Amino acid sequence: MTDAPMTASASTATAGEVLARYLTGQAGGFLRALPQAVGEAGARPGALPSLNAPGGSAGTEDLLRAVRRIGGVLHTFGQLFERTWAEEFRSELRWLLNLLAQEPAYTRRAARLLGALDTLSATGATGELGGPGMLAGHQGAPKARALLDRQLTLARTRAHSTVLQELRSARLHALADRMTLLVGEAPLLTAAAGEAGEVLLPQAARALETLTAAAAALPLRRAATAYQGDALHRLGGGAPQVPAQARTAAPASAGGDIADSALAADDAPWHRVRILVKRARYAGEVCGRAVAELDGLDRVLDHHQEAADAAVTAATAARTPRITPATAYVLGVVHADQRLEVEAARYAFGSQWPSISFGLDGWEESPVPRTA
Amino acid sequence: MTDAPMTASASTATAGEVLARYLTGQAGGFLRALPQAVGEAGARPGALPSLNAPGGSAGTEDLLRAVRRIGGVLHTFGQLFERTWAEEFRSELRWLLNLLAQEPAYTRRAARLLGALDTLSATGATGELGGPGMLAGHQGAPKARALLDRQLTLARTRAHSTVLQELRSARLHALADRMTLLVGEAPLLTAAAGEAGEVLLPQAARALETLTAAAAALPLRRAATAYQGDALHRLGGGAPQVPAQARTAAPASAGGDIADSALAADDAPWHRVRILVKRARYAGEVCGRAVAELDGLDRVLDHHQEAADAAVTAATAARTPRITPATAYVLGVVHADQRLEVEAARYAFGSQWPSISFGLDGWEESPVPRTA
Repeated sequence: MTDAPMTASASTATAGEVLARYLTGQAGGFLRALPQAVGEAGARPGALPSLNAPGGSAGTEDLLRAVRRIGGVLHTFGQLFERTWAEEFRSELRWLLNLLAQEPAYTRRAARLLGALDTLSATGATGELGGPGMLAGHQGAPKARALLDRQLTLARTRAHSTVLQELRSARLHALADRMTLLVGEAPLLTAAAGEAGEVLLPQAARALETLTAAAAALPLRRAATAYQGDALHRLGGGAPQVPAQARTAAPASAGGDIADSALAADDAPWHRVRILVKRARYAGEVCGRAVAELDGLDRVLDHHQEAADAAVTAATAARTPRITPATAYVLGVVHADQRLEVEAARYAFGSQWPSISFGLDGWEESPVPRTA
Repeated sequence: MTDAPMTASASTATAGEVLARYLTGQAGGFLRALPQAVGEAGARPGALPSLNAPGGSAGTEDLLRAVRRIGGVLHTFGQLFERTWAEEFRSELRWLLNLLAQEPAYTRRAARLLGALDTLSATGATGELGGPGMLAGHQGAPKARALLDRQLTLARTRAHSTVLQELRSARLHALADRMTLLVGEAPLLTAAAGEAGEVLLPQAARALETLTAAAAALPLRRAATAYQGDALHRLGGGAPQVPAQARTAAPASAGGDIADSALAADDAPWHRVRILVKRARYAGEVCGRAVAELDGLDRVLDHHQEAADAAVTAATAARTPRITPATAYVLGVVHADQRLEVEAARYAFGSQWPSISFGLDGWEESPVPRTA
């Protein structure tokens, strides 16, 4: 861990010093992980990472970790940085995030979907934990499994090739140069000369307020009722809370189904809250206050996103030409299963959310020491 | 309501008198409902009951009501009746129950499945309650709906014809004669001469004990955890609790899939508890103690059974030859949706179960007046 928490001495440190220390730590992590990630990617031109690896290689994970944090901090404390510089930097970080996150996401999605299919197909012999799966012995299960495996492997291979190509690109070299400059040389504005506590805490609190407002707009009461009394029928998250523009702006998936875009619009506010949770979490790290509940919510919303993406993959696979009805049937079950996981994640979020106290007072008066 | 509760005067009544009063009431209800049911069935030779009618005609529902209660009471208080008579009577009641229950069951199943499909296909326009359905705009939804509608209508028509035929059969006439004789003339043994409270309450308590033991063997802790942390993957109810014979004895459905029989074996202990809840409930009625919680559990397990049956119907429909993959996919979603309702019913049962106090002491000391 290279985080630079605001320790006891921080009361006399300036906001700029605290931010620079945090960013230097993250940039250092990035620069150490970069050659490792390049090496790992190159060392396995054809070999894909094992399904057992939860997501990508260690180098890539470290890169993603630093990229997410630097991007989040540049957003939350944006007022303290030279504006054009911060915007350009964030734009490049988003590019790298999208580039690097894909392959591990496909790996996780394959593990999730094939694992779900295997459990759904399990016969649940006596002595085994749990009963029989819903698709035990179903003739379509092996075919659906092979289809999903093939399509996800193809997607992963493509993502891997793109990463390989871009890891040697001028664009990545330029971004690495930016990172090198970031170490100790972030272009801070004069406002950053203020005392850390006075300057940083209000902005971190604002990140929490944004999160709280967005979470309050979620249909939490519905999500917090297990099974919602009517199962998958009303999977949607409550239309009134979803802004009309999110509904229409949601991009249709490759398969281009109304169902997909309607669900995407329904998921959108949750995905947005996921980003806000991460930002609030990183802002807390800068201020030396780790909020354990935020880590938990972050994980829950990661699962929410992954299950929603996996459901789209199952629905898209079901539109593959010339598959058998039995295969399509199994993919329908898998789709429903993943949407149920989406709902379960919302339920988990709804159960955890109200127990978190985010008050600015609590934040200031009882700083939690950074532990992990 | 023609129930004959054990009122204040019951403390001096014999068990036989209380039982006879209850059975006379039920037999009277049966005999009044019979011509109505015959008339209703005959009046609509082709016309099927509306989907809006929750289950069958009023006459049939009254018949079923009486048949279930007489059968349950003959079982629970079996020691007080002439054995051969009671066994033969119960066997004929079971026949009539199976005969009469089918048509309303198909009606309810059609309402359940088509309603679920409609909600799953709803686009969830702004202002409407709930979000978009999982199958909003899916091309397979109308075809799957038509298929389910066709198959369930056919099954209902067949059940209706069978009822029409049997309502005029010698077997039913013989059963009606038995009912007529039951009014005031149940062949009771000498044990029934004992005081009602002393003879009936221990036997009712035994019915509750049987229920409690069977419910304790259910995987209630798992069922009571919403979403079980792993969604539909582990739909089964926990193999260790299911006796091996229930597992192998479960009949494969018409479609003959391993999945169906594995799930049937998993559902079996729950269906058994449903019977035991009904028996305990009717035993309570005989003793003038309505246990409201039992009514609630009865409803929950009725839903459990109906959702499990509906899931089998969806799975069976998916094996119809020459359907399109899109249709099969939708049926897979519908199957998963109904299995989720099965799980939701188990969750509801698990949440309600521990709050019920069934102790014999409570049963004796605080009799609840029969209200409904």
